Amino acid sequence: MPYKPLSDRVIIQQQDAEETTKFGIVLPDAAQEKPQTGKVVAVGPGRTTDDGKNVPIAVKEGDVVVFAKYGGTTVKDAGQEYLIIKESDILAIRS
Amino acid sequence: MPYKPLSDRVIIQQQDAEETTKFGIVLPDAAQEKPQTGKVVAVGPGRTTDDGKNVPIAVKEGDVVVFAKYGGTTVKDAGQEYLIIKESDILAIRS
Amino acid sequence: MPYKPLSDRVIIQQQDAEETTKFGIVLPDAAQEKPQTGKVVAVGPGRTTDDGKNVPIAVKEGDVVVFAKYGGTTVKDAGQEYLIIKESDILAIRS
Amino acid sequence: MPYKPLSDRVIIQQQDAEETTKFGIVLPDAAQEKPQTGKVVAVGPGRTTDDGKNVPIAVKEGDVVVFAKYGGTTVKDAGQEYLIIKESDILAIRS
Amino acid sequence: MPYKPLSDRVIIQQQDAEETTKFGIVLPDAAQEKPQTGKVVAVGPGRTTDDGKNVPIAVKEGDVVVFAKYGGTTVKDAGQEYLIIKESDILAIRS
Amino acid sequence: MPYKPLSDRVIIQQQDAEETTKFGIVLPDAAQEKPQTGKVVAVGPGRTTDDGKNVPIAVKEGDVVVFAKYGGTTVKDAGQEYLIIKESDILAIRS
Amino acid sequence: MPYKPLSDRVIIQQQDAEETTKFGIVLPDAAQEKPQTGKVVAVGPGRTTDDGKNVPIAVKEGDVVVFAKYGGTTVKDAGQEYLIIKESDILAIRS
Repeated sequence: MPYKPLSDRVIIQQQDAEETTKFGIVLPDAAQEKPQTGKVVAVGPGRTTDDGKNVPIAVKEGDVVVFAKYGGTTVKDAGQEYLIIKESDILAIRS
Repeated sequence: MPYKPLSDRVIIQQQDAEETTKFGIVLPDAAQEKPQTGKVVAVGPGRTTDDGKNVPIAVKEGDVVVFAKYGGTTVKDAGQEYLIIKESDILAIRS
Repeated sequence: MPYKPLSDRVIIQQQDAEETTKFGIVLPDAAQEKPQTGKVVAVGPGRTTDDGKNVPIAVKEGDVVVFAKYGGTTVKDAGQEYLIIKESDILAIRS
Repeated sequence: MPYKPLSDRVIIQQQDAEETTKFGIVLPDAAQEKPQTGKVVAVGPGRTTDDGKNVPIAVKEGDVVVFAKYGGTTVKDAGQEYLIIKESDILAIRS
Repeated sequence: MPYKPLSDRVIIQQQDAEETTKFGIVLPDAAQEKPQTGKVVAVGPGRTTDDGKNVPIAVKEGDVVVFAKYGGTTVKDAGQEYLIIKESDILAIRS
Repeated sequence: MPYKPLSDRVIIQQQDAEETTKFGIVLPDAAQEKPQTGKVVAVGPGRTTDDGKNVPIAVKEGDVVVFAKYGGTTVKDAGQEYLIIKESDILAIRS
Repeated sequence: MPYKPLSDRVIIQQQDAEETTKFGIVLPDAAQEKPQTGKVVAVGPGRTTDDGKNVPIAVKEGDVVVFAKYGGTTVKDAGQEYLIIKESDILAIRS
């Protein structure tokens, strides 16, 4: 993973259809919020508050997460697509 | 429940029609806010404030709640649908 | 009252027409804000600020209040309808 | 005045046309902001900040004020109409 | 000046055309922001912050100012029109 | 410069075409944000925060700056036009 | 680089097509957010918070970054175009 996200951003490798089925089918609830599953491949340092405090990110590399795709940005590396999203777009971790 | 919600999110198992009747019929007041009843099956750790303080969630697993479905996201596991919502979408607990 | 409101929410039993007349007729000023009178039947614990402080609710059970119905949600229990509103929708207490 | 306003709200008895003329004619500047004069008949305790501090209201009963009617709510008591507005809708006090 | 403005409001006596020319012609830049010159005739006490601190107003009676008329409210007293605006609508003082 | 800007405002003397060319041609990127160059001729004292702290302005008289013209207001003095903008509309200083 | 950005702004030299291919093709995800790669050529001092604290910028000169072009402003110097963006428009650093 050559990209290191900034602030409260996370890079996700989206699950392909087969994997998604293993974890359960994710049903979109509304058109503007498309939930998806994926694996976290890189996490930023967390945002810095006005008091200069760091708010670390609550997920870590390797976590499988459900996220709302709203607002993410796709990048490609070595033939593989990744998605850069904000931590706040992650809804839940699959334990 | 294989999903662990992040931040101030809660996972709800919606009540089917029979159960809802037992607790009283919930009448939608406006089209954009659809109140529903459901059982809390998982709660997140609560949001983190800019001061690094944790604001814990005021409901717990097993609580039966009235919530506004506005903005929730549906996920499916083992043939059962669940709804991931924000704590602020929960209006009241049925005691 | 089997419902316990969360945060800064209040449950109101709306006054029927006869009672409203006793307290004075309430005239709607604009279409989107419909003032009404009702009796408070349950109050939430108040909202929690970012500093973890609790801001208690300024009305109590039994208070007769004028409120803006805007944004409230109707629930039914034992054949009686109630309205869940935010404290900030309450305009005044009738003393 | 049987109504006690909550938070940063104020109850106003609007001036009738004769009185308004005595204080000077108030000219509406724009359609959405209709300035009016009136007498303050009840004031709320002021809003509570996130730090739990009370911000008292800067007008008192008996003050004659110029206010923007935008957003107010009319109530009636003993045949007299009153207007419940926010303190921030009051522009100036007539001294 | 019988009006005493509240909070961060200021009362302005607009310059007539002759006076404006003496100070330089003010050219409107966009339709929604109409810059004008005028003399300050009354200032409010300044706004109160959430910490209970007063933020005093940076202009004083007698100052000739350039202001954006956007949002102001016209009042009339003794045949003279005045404009009640927010301090933040004042762009500059003519020294 | 007879005008003294308030708060976080700055007065700019726009560069004419010849001068702009010396510093490099500035290309507008989008219709709503028109970058321009100009010389700072007056700076305000900076904004006052809720804590009563002053945040001084980061440019000084004589600085040549690139700014987004969005939202500025034109005033004229002694036949010369000036632009009153907010400090936040200044993108960079030409060193 | 004759321009020194203000506050939390960064100046980027966009990668031409050949260079972009070396780092992997960047695919736009949505029309309004056009991700691009570029080299950081100048960074501002960081924004100043209400407490007077400086929040330094997390990228440095020479960093190759992925950014959302949304909202940037193009300037030209010595025949070369540059883009002035906010730090928050930078999504990730290529390590």
